[in-house]
Amino acid sequence: MHGKFKIIAATALLASLSFGAYAQSAAERSIQYRQGIMKAQGWHLGNMAAQVKGDKPYNKDDFSRSATFLSQLMQMPWDGFGPGTETGAPTKAKADIWTDAAKFKSEGDEAGKAAAALAQAAASGNMDQIKVAFGATAKTCKTCHDDFRTK
Amino acid sequence: MHGKFKIIAATALLASLSFGAYAQSAAERSIQYRQGIMKAQGWHLGNMAAQVKGDKPYNKDDFSRSATFLSQLMQMPWDGFGPGTETGAPTKAKADIWTDAAKFKSEGDEAGKAAAALAQAAASGNMDQIKVAFGATAKTCKTCHDDFRTK
Repeated sequence: MHGKFKIIAATALLASLSFGAYAQSAAERSIQYRQGIMKAQGWHLGNMAAQVKGDKPYNKDDFSRSATFLSQLMQMPWDGFGPGTETGAPTKAKADIWTDAAKFKSEGDEAGKAAAALAQAAASGNMDQIKVAFGATAKTCKTCHDDFRTK
Repeated sequence: MHGKFKIIAATALLASLSFGAYAQSAAERSIQYRQGIMKAQGWHLGNMAAQVKGDKPYNKDDFSRSATFLSQLMQMPWDGFGPGTETGAPTKAKADIWTDAAKFKSEGDEAGKAAAALAQAAASGNMDQIKVAFGATAKTCKTCHDDFRTK
């Protein structure tokens, strides 16, 4: 009973967390999940852009933190594009995500590689390398949005 | 001029990404950032809860993936609670976050440690360890929400 009690306790805790998720469909939760991840990606990308552009003083630690987080986040949204998540909440996702899944995966993989390279460049603190890696990463975002996101 | 061209190109790319962020205030973007991260945390927590409860068959790799992502995400929301982000978009954040910053940080650190321990337990595949670590992690979420989030 001890193990079972733990499950019940954990479940009660979870229910009490009021993530607002329990009245939602699985598709709605997945759509909001992937949008949350991409919103967070955009925030870190914006923080880095401000430093690349000089709108905000470059700080190696702050920039590198954003680059590392972006690299981690770039692995995450794909879980939210599972079968049956084409609709269920407001979304700009094109049907091509599911009809051309190989291309979508390929572009996602490219984005992941570019963000990992940006995190490496950020750790070096070399602004020339950073600029190249930042531009390459932003380009993978744009490519995938152009191909798989409605305006 | 080569370096400068790269900056301009990267900036143009970024502007064209239409994250919808550029007409927003810095506070609004920070609030939506932290909410996006916590939405994503909730999604992975829910995926793990379903497996702990038996609503979904336990799959070691799937569970471990969610635990690792949650552990990474648990490091991220704090950046979105900077000065001046008390208001600016709909938020349930209590003022105590800024007036009792030490307690907020302490509870955030506890959540980070608990999620890291859950990721370790998940890698072991030992369900007894997983249940304990999952319950402990869910408890840190609840504690911080009880203290710092309005109903």
